[in-house]
Amino acid sequence: MAFIVQKFGGSSVANAERIRRVAGIIADTYVDDNDVVVVLSAQGDTTDDLIEKAKEINPNPSKREMDMLLSTGEQMSVALMAMALEKMGLPVVSLTGWQIGLSTNSEYGSARIKKIAGDRIRTELDRRRIVLVAGFQGINKYDDITTLGRGGSDTTAVAIAAAMHADLCQIYTDVEGVFTSDPRKVPNARKLDEITYDEMLELASLGAQVLHNRSVEMAKRYGVNLEVLSSFERKPGTKVKEVTKKVEQTKISGIAKDTNVARIAVMGLKDVPGIAFKVFQVMAKKKINVDIILQSIGRGDTQDISFTVPQSDTETARAALLEAQEAIGFSDLSVDESVAKVSIVGAGMMTSSGIAALMFEALYDAKVNIQMISTSEIKVSVLVDEKDADRAVTAIHSKFFD
Amino acid sequence: MAFIVQKFGGSSVANAERIRRVAGIIADTYVDDNDVVVVLSAQGDTTDDLIEKAKEINPNPSKREMDMLLSTGEQMSVALMAMALEKMGLPVVSLTGWQIGLSTNSEYGSARIKKIAGDRIRTELDRRRIVLVAGFQGINKYDDITTLGRGGSDTTAVAIAAAMHADLCQIYTDVEGVFTSDPRKVPNARKLDEITYDEMLELASLGAQVLHNRSVEMAKRYGVNLEVLSSFERKPGTKVKEVTKKVEQTKISGIAKDTNVARIAVMGLKDVPGIAFKVFQVMAKKKINVDIILQSIGRGDTQDISFTVPQSDTETARAALLEAQEAIGFSDLSVDESVAKVSIVGAGMMTSSGIAALMFEALYDAKVNIQMISTSEIKVSVLVDEKDADRAVTAIHSKFFD
Repeated sequence: MAFIVQKFGGSSVANAERIRRVAGIIADTYVDDNDVVVVLSAQGDTTDDLIEKAKEINPNPSKREMDMLLSTGEQMSVALMAMALEKMGLPVVSLTGWQIGLSTNSEYGSARIKKIAGDRIRTELDRRRIVLVAGFQGINKYDDITTLGRGGSDTTAVAIAAAMHADLCQIYTDVEGVFTSDPRKVPNARKLDEITYDEMLELASLGAQVLHNRSVEMAKRYGVNLEVLSSFERKPGTKVKEVTKKVEQTKISGIAKDTNVARIAVMGLKDVPGIAFKVFQVMAKKKINVDIILQSIGRGDTQDISFTVPQSDTETARAALLEAQEAIGFSDLSVDESVAKVSIVGAGMMTSSGIAALMFEALYDAKVNIQMISTSEIKVSVLVDEKDADRAVTAIHSKFFD
Repeated sequence: MAFIVQKFGGSSVANAERIRRVAGIIADTYVDDNDVVVVLSAQGDTTDDLIEKAKEINPNPSKREMDMLLSTGEQMSVALMAMALEKMGLPVVSLTGWQIGLSTNSEYGSARIKKIAGDRIRTELDRRRIVLVAGFQGINKYDDITTLGRGGSDTTAVAIAAAMHADLCQIYTDVEGVFTSDPRKVPNARKLDEITYDEMLELASLGAQVLHNRSVEMAKRYGVNLEVLSSFERKPGTKVKEVTKKVEQTKISGIAKDTNVARIAVMGLKDVPGIAFKVFQVMAKKKINVDIILQSIGRGDTQDISFTVPQSDTETARAALLEAQEAIGFSDLSVDESVAKVSIVGAGMMTSSGIAALMFEALYDAKVNIQMISTSEIKVSVLVDEKDADRAVTAIHSKFFD
């Protein structure tokens, strides 16, 4: 007997047939004598349809009313799933965010969870009911409905698991788990049995969109045992935990590619102390995340600084820099969006020499030019031409895993 | 400055264009310096679509989960309407049933309102906001969502008006008000400026489906001033109140036709005391409403009893009577569904002689055969052949109104 939280995303509950399949997974977990809390997202395109309806009426609605509208999607999902489980003769109850007492701050559209009053869920579990919870939503101190933003249902599941000390939090998706690389791109990509929170965080931030960082961070903070697995195939997924048993030869956990990146070069800067600070202060003010940074060695009295930003922030960054051109003092600005970041991630990387060298060797063999390099405790990232990115991933994957 | 509750039905908010039109009506009421609370139904076919989705998964879902599902429809309506009003630059807030503290008993699917905690609405009105309330829904003592069943949004509006002592409760529909007869059938049908609660109750129960009886009963009990009017045309509707100013010559308020009626004849009953009681006890046990009753004069030692029931109850009534055939003691049973009830309604009817006679004269002129007759303080009903019903209504209408 264990206490298991399960989360199913929108594609897993997109239609009646899929709802029935997921009901089967939930039922199996329940009849194995476990306490089961299930968090659901809105069905397939429901959220997009609702957004479209809203935009037809008001292209710029308040976030408060948008949350009021969107939260209905998850409520529909849990009611329909409850009906599917009732049909199987199982005791079940569906609950909204406010019904489980999930309180948040008042940032409509991207609210942060403050507390979950677990008593309603506890009462229902004690009655041996399967508890279905509408993900993505809560209420603020005014009793208004809030939504949690991207990855909100994952976060709901992890938060419930943390608040109620669940033994396991299973995140069901449309992939079998976490892979060494994107299995649609790299034929030899291997599913990992285990991965650490930190590795998972790096992989998520690098574009391997299995779990949203927010939920992984919360799982790490509260020590929630996570498992990522497929709702389409009944087999074990990838366990995410603090420490993993890693066999010596597996130097890295995964390879990720991120094409949502642009390189900005600020050229002809005065070669004086504090110049980098001035540049990045402008970025910080606009809340733009700067990633890889390359500061050139001064040529005479000027120098260049290059860095990467998310492509969605390119225009904001360009405008902010041009506005501050006089204050900073630079001659030219160039922006290149045809780049991609390729990264290897592994918890023991820095204690194991030669990992980065192996990556560079793979890229050299594949004739991929490296534009920039960045390293951290558990990853090495390189910036390459976008058209070379897939070739780079495959080459690195062969080097480490074949 | 008045406190006005407005209610708009599903067809009035069926799409973006209609939502904008309704927003215009609400805005005009608000800028006239009134406190405005608006109750909305689910958009057009939303409820039917949700029911269909549910049935695909479970043909017989629990009412608790059905309420969880269906209540999302009204929540979507209020959020979308809020966005339309925001676009006009007006301060507005949408609220669900639980947010306004509308508590009900636990009869899922047809819950009764127990109380409305008016404080949230009051706070919002004091901030000069337009308050939009999701109709049809509340919560029970377990904090579970309930729905109010048929006419639920009308009832929500009247209950808010009663609880918060509103000056007026306007029910917007797709007709201009209450008519002397169905304007689609009787070309000369006239809109009434005023009607009493009692007349309205009789008209509603007789098939003139403008307002559900439940909401009219509640309005009468709490003295809520009602107005029925069209959301498509900006003109005064029909006021529903305790006493109306009636000019002498208007003998009746309206003529209604009800085709959801069947005549059951129980024949060959023993002509002994208590026999009628036995028949109607069987109906009462099945909760079947019996309307017009005709007890024949005994022929020898037997007699017949005929009565009408709603057509939806015909089979239940037939089965119950046959099961009790021995206990009651009758020889034959006949059921006729090809009948219709035509009624005239008017508060001052019984004090004004000759009204019924005028009705019968109209029917005689039109060669409509009367099968049964029933009278009350404020109405006269006749049962006629269904094929004669429209001709009967037109003939009576001409007699009284032309």
